[in-house]
Amino acid sequence: MLHDLIIIGGGCAGLAASVYARRYNMDVLLVSESLGGTITTTHLVENYPGFTRVSGLELAQAFIKHAEANDVPFKVGERVTAVRKIGDIFEVDFGPETLQSRTVLLATGTTYRKIGIPGEAEFSSRGVSYCATCDAGFYKGKNVIMIGGGDSAVKESLILAEHAAHVTIVYRGEKFTKAEPINLKRMEATPNISVRFKTNLKEVRGDTTVKSVLLDDGTEMATQGVFIEIGRIPLTTMVDPLNVAKNEKGEILINLMSETNVPGFYAAGDVTDTEWKQAIVSACEGTKASYRAFEFVSAQKINNPS
Amino acid sequence: MLHDLIIIGGGCAGLAASVYARRYNMDVLLVSESLGGTITTTHLVENYPGFTRVSGLELAQAFIKHAEANDVPFKVGERVTAVRKIGDIFEVDFGPETLQSRTVLLATGTTYRKIGIPGEAEFSSRGVSYCATCDAGFYKGKNVIMIGGGDSAVKESLILAEHAAHVTIVYRGEKFTKAEPINLKRMEATPNISVRFKTNLKEVRGDTTVKSVLLDDGTEMATQGVFIEIGRIPLTTMVDPLNVAKNEKGEILINLMSETNVPGFYAAGDVTDTEWKQAIVSACEGTKASYRAFEFVSAQKINNPS
Repeated sequence: MLHDLIIIGGGCAGLAASVYARRYNMDVLLVSESLGGTITTTHLVENYPGFTRVSGLELAQAFIKHAEANDVPFKVGERVTAVRKIGDIFEVDFGPETLQSRTVLLATGTTYRKIGIPGEAEFSSRGVSYCATCDAGFYKGKNVIMIGGGDSAVKESLILAEHAAHVTIVYRGEKFTKAEPINLKRMEATPNISVRFKTNLKEVRGDTTVKSVLLDDGTEMATQGVFIEIGRIPLTTMVDPLNVAKNEKGEILINLMSETNVPGFYAAGDVTDTEWKQAIVSACEGTKASYRAFEFVSAQKINNPS
Repeated sequence: MLHDLIIIGGGCAGLAASVYARRYNMDVLLVSESLGGTITTTHLVENYPGFTRVSGLELAQAFIKHAEANDVPFKVGERVTAVRKIGDIFEVDFGPETLQSRTVLLATGTTYRKIGIPGEAEFSSRGVSYCATCDAGFYKGKNVIMIGGGDSAVKESLILAEHAAHVTIVYRGEKFTKAEPINLKRMEATPNISVRFKTNLKEVRGDTTVKSVLLDDGTEMATQGVFIEIGRIPLTTMVDPLNVAKNEKGEILINLMSETNVPGFYAAGDVTDTEWKQAIVSACEGTKASYRAFEFVSAQKINNPS
């Protein structure tokens, strides 16, 4: 069976795309290991326009309900291991099956790069966070630390400093070589940010929530929040056979309408090179991809009816 | 008083932007003739991700509530008549007041171009629609007409034809000279679309909803829906003093992050050159503008503290 569009990924981008695809009367199929995506790991979402205050799980459920109301067909529980293009047809290996489609949208997102130290996983969402933009507001008046030394770590520290009493950046390097000068200047002008260079985190400690961290110089430092910003890993290996253009971070390059360099192949959400990763952006990119896929499939059916 | 950001417009783009601006602790002010925007004129919205089925008014109210929960200051009830830049400061004439800000976001949207014939205003949202993408789903199995002959009219007819029993395009010209060839080809391959050239609409008739239209050859044609796609007018005259770059339609040119050619001046939503006008796109562009305005203002405060 030849689908019009296969969406890979069940997060905000994929689910939003699936709703629009159905509204364009496309034969769409959404395949994913699970439904909900990265947003489900966020304690509280207060910045998806229209939802004043919901848990990440509730927002994901609203997206899933929306897709179900539009009769989006799902296949969940397996991994996509490879996507190939044979002539005009995409082949998608999903678990033991090989599926076929005229177009494909990759919306697999990223996985946050972890440090891999004791306490990191245990206190995730209970003081350990991988997104200052998402969670800074929950640390008003508290002391927090930021792990990392790239431009993202510096920029996210500025956001944290708007809320937290004090932010300590803990960085293994001797100085910030990867941060943009303007962001460094902003950071230096912010009185409630300090930096410990040449320092690594060894352990996160606490009871029900984070209480302190152990540093590799032997110091135990009291803190209520540990923000880890050491990079993200876009989940793209399954599309390696397509030779999709990526940036130096391994993110898939898209244009204003979620198109990649491969005709009929789209990407949306955190897996793309979009600078600013937010649920609203993912949802928007997903819907744009469906619009373009609809146009692409309509043209293909005229030129090459099956 | 010098604001960080003045948002002009109270629709999806402006309201979404205001939430993010507050979450970045910016001194933001939203000014608008009214709150809610174009979406309030849409009978039913089934494609804003996360909201399965709401009226346009309900969706607008959700956005307003979201902004209110974030303590966004509003000034409503006057028109912005001019925006100037004096040195680094923007001046915004709002009714009798002149407001000052470090950055400005224009989110004024568009007004649909009307034909101006009897019955058009009377049956608006009761059979007369200016957005096939929004409303096509409500005309399943019905006969509808599309007024217009540009690329948008042809493309929107394709969307209508997915749902309607039959679509008649009524166009004053002799042939379609402005539509993309691929869209024309698609239209010609669609059996339930027909065209009446060299014909104008004279009147829309009905009782509680549309029942027929009167054409200028004297024919009365039975129809349940009249879609009018003769262009939109972006609301930009107030920013003429800024010399903002626009396209041939008068839409403001923005990049992937809602920036214009004027530093510190952003645009979002239907007033921009974004090809695809949807609530989700407007909301996304608004939030991106706030993010960039936050970065811009932070840099300005370091270099030039007031």
